[in-house]
Amino acid sequence: MIVCKFGGTSVASADQIRKVVDIVTSDSNRRIVVVSAPGKRFSNDIKVTDLLIRLGEKALSNGDTEKELCEVVDRYRGIAEGLGLSEQIVHIIEEDLRYRLSQDKEDSSLYIDTLKAAGEDNNAKLIANYLQFIGIDAKYINPKEAGLLVNNRPERVRALPEGDKRLSALKNEHAIIVFPGFFGFTEDGTLRTFNRGGSDITGSLIAAAVEAELYENFTDVDSVFAANPTVIENPVAIDRMTYREMRELAYAGFSVFHDEALIPAFRKSIPVAIKNTNNPSAPGTLIVKERDYNEQQVIGIAADSGFTTIYVDKFLMNLEIGFGRRLLQIFEEEEIPFEHTPSGIDNLSVIIRSKFLTKSKEERIVERIHKELEPDAVIVEDDYSMIVLVGEGMQYTTGLAARAATAIARTGANIEMINQGSSEVSLVFGVKKKDETKILKELYAEFFETANIHS
Amino acid sequence: MIVCKFGGTSVASADQIRKVVDIVTSDSNRRIVVVSAPGKRFSNDIKVTDLLIRLGEKALSNGDTEKELCEVVDRYRGIAEGLGLSEQIVHIIEEDLRYRLSQDKEDSSLYIDTLKAAGEDNNAKLIANYLQFIGIDAKYINPKEAGLLVNNRPERVRALPEGDKRLSALKNEHAIIVFPGFFGFTEDGTLRTFNRGGSDITGSLIAAAVEAELYENFTDVDSVFAANPTVIENPVAIDRMTYREMRELAYAGFSVFHDEALIPAFRKSIPVAIKNTNNPSAPGTLIVKERDYNEQQVIGIAADSGFTTIYVDKFLMNLEIGFGRRLLQIFEEEEIPFEHTPSGIDNLSVIIRSKFLTKSKEERIVERIHKELEPDAVIVEDDYSMIVLVGEGMQYTTGLAARAATAIARTGANIEMINQGSSEVSLVFGVKKKDETKILKELYAEFFETANIHS
Repeated sequence: MIVCKFGGTSVASADQIRKVVDIVTSDSNRRIVVVSAPGKRFSNDIKVTDLLIRLGEKALSNGDTEKELCEVVDRYRGIAEGLGLSEQIVHIIEEDLRYRLSQDKEDSSLYIDTLKAAGEDNNAKLIANYLQFIGIDAKYINPKEAGLLVNNRPERVRALPEGDKRLSALKNEHAIIVFPGFFGFTEDGTLRTFNRGGSDITGSLIAAAVEAELYENFTDVDSVFAANPTVIENPVAIDRMTYREMRELAYAGFSVFHDEALIPAFRKSIPVAIKNTNNPSAPGTLIVKERDYNEQQVIGIAADSGFTTIYVDKFLMNLEIGFGRRLLQIFEEEEIPFEHTPSGIDNLSVIIRSKFLTKSKEERIVERIHKELEPDAVIVEDDYSMIVLVGEGMQYTTGLAARAATAIARTGANIEMINQGSSEVSLVFGVKKKDETKILKELYAEFFETANIHS
Repeated sequence: MIVCKFGGTSVASADQIRKVVDIVTSDSNRRIVVVSAPGKRFSNDIKVTDLLIRLGEKALSNGDTEKELCEVVDRYRGIAEGLGLSEQIVHIIEEDLRYRLSQDKEDSSLYIDTLKAAGEDNNAKLIANYLQFIGIDAKYINPKEAGLLVNNRPERVRALPEGDKRLSALKNEHAIIVFPGFFGFTEDGTLRTFNRGGSDITGSLIAAAVEAELYENFTDVDSVFAANPTVIENPVAIDRMTYREMRELAYAGFSVFHDEALIPAFRKSIPVAIKNTNNPSAPGTLIVKERDYNEQQVIGIAADSGFTTIYVDKFLMNLEIGFGRRLLQIFEEEEIPFEHTPSGIDNLSVIIRSKFLTKSKEERIVERIHKELEPDAVIVEDDYSMIVLVGEGMQYTTGLAARAATAIARTGANIEMINQGSSEVSLVFGVKKKDETKILKELYAEFFETANIHS
């Protein structure tokens, strides 16, 4: 059994949905189809989810919502007409939206969640309707009915394992299931959405629950590339990589696949295929548990900017048991996750994503460090980028760090930080933002263009 | 005014003490002389401090202590006779030892401290006596009388700044002061010793208190070397380095100068000279606040073994605020200081000195990590060595990490960890113990033997 998920651009129009149906029906193992809300049809189009947020916000401010409602309904109408469906499905969708709008507005976050989820939910109904229309045994199933259970922490909605057993019953359905991505329900029946990109999570959860042989994630690129195509011209496609490699790449700017979505598949060792709805015969990228890393040590190079370093220096720091813990606690209490903590003998830096650091938080943190840890110096510097070389077995490859550091030296850029040692899968270089692009190009050339002439 | 401190081998015999006196009297600025207990006269000799510990332990076990007492008194008698001093000073020393032995034994740690301190204390009396004997205006001063105040934490005795003002009065003495190293007194008059090597601390404290122009630390080597002379044949001598460089080298195996001893000198920017009692005309090593690092980026390479890595892996770890803090807290609660914490995206390692990890602590830590952090994996590995390249301004030197990593690659050894980024003064490589020596040799060759042929 294959679970396949189609992203926003794959289900944005009647033409796209016909491609989806062709893909689904071309392999009888494709039994469960998870769909996103209609995405962009062209570059400056607006995603249905964004239209729904706009609608919800208008409703919350007690304005007249007819215009915004119409925009959403029209998008579905356009798809329905393009697929030759009757007005009935559009009517169902419109009624559903009006019902959601009439819900209690007291908790605005819940209200917006309910509206946002309408994008996927109604698209699933529409696509199931189309499959039935063309004579295929298909069925829309709602996450509530299926038992997709989530926790009740709006700041970080996650699926609860208690739901897995009920979800696993989906594999007994005879019809092809069309399932909306992006949301689930709490124990008490409250609708909650995942983060953006959360349809990937839904697909992965279901694939894990039914123990699918494969989870296919259809999007609009042929594969995952070894480097960012907007920086590197025609980068090498990755045909096969491990979950951990995908995770490291996703962390540092590879936005192909949602981070958390890997977990359920990873836990059940279900292979994940990244494929292109618009070019389904392309081999795509297969994400698996293990690969033979002797063939290729470095599978990809990611780069991400927007990092800040907080450097703390204190003579004989390393004799103070608890110094590092107390420093990290200050960040924890300010709700700032840290990325790296390189250390010298008498100093420790905490590297964080700058987006978490407001001016007032920065001032408070520096003040607290001075007061609570009595350091000799605290220095905050931003505009750092992280360049991450990713590849299984990298740690066992003699000379790889030397090749990378030498390539960076060729650009004339300075290495501000190197972090190697915990992960077997990555080697992280901290550099100044201004040097990021030239370093990425040089490393790409070193590991992908001249791979054959190096030992 | 110069404060000079003489280590154990410099004051181990009459001949050595004559060299000390020659050095002290050759420069009228040398006004304060801090002395250790008599050290080894030959390689399998026993230090007086060790004889005193043996004596104290015998007394604590209520055995007959005459033989052990005699051994100590005989050492001083040998020195006194060699210097032509009368039996009177030996008698004073013997009475002092008997008085210490008669002290209350209830707190065995205090009792041993009192006995250990006798080594320095009586040597200072003896040397002052000799100076007077040869007609020099000299004076023994006791740390209690001088006001060398320490805290009351036997597990980590440190000088209290409150004592500085009284200590500063030492500069007003007309006579040359002979001052015993290694111990001070708490507010309530209890004698407490510093760690081993603590005479360095006493010298540095006094140099800072009297704002000396120079603090000379006389020992039995000509200078600090760029690498361990037992591994590298005839390593380059370091003529000038900064406090921070000395500190980083001392951390990783350079035992020339006691770690904590640098602090008082560092705080008052007093230059520290490392010199050889047996070859006082050798230029030695001068430790200063700043140096021109353009002349030489790498000043020394240290290596130390006996490190253990605790690797913790958990999918999506870096989304869990507080994960790192909670991990470090477990080590803190087991009273284990950590050295480095390299991190991947989904994993974090804590590198500690293996000596802190008993089998039962290790089991408890691993169990707690499993229980409290629910990781996917915890792996403990030992037999790591740290190789530390030290040099001011290193961080600003493009290509230095590449040169070092390339040199290591030439040995065929794998780099297990690289830590660069916090310290401006060091670059740390974690390697397997078995590779330590060959890496140290290759790095030495790279940075010291072929320095001229590299850019």
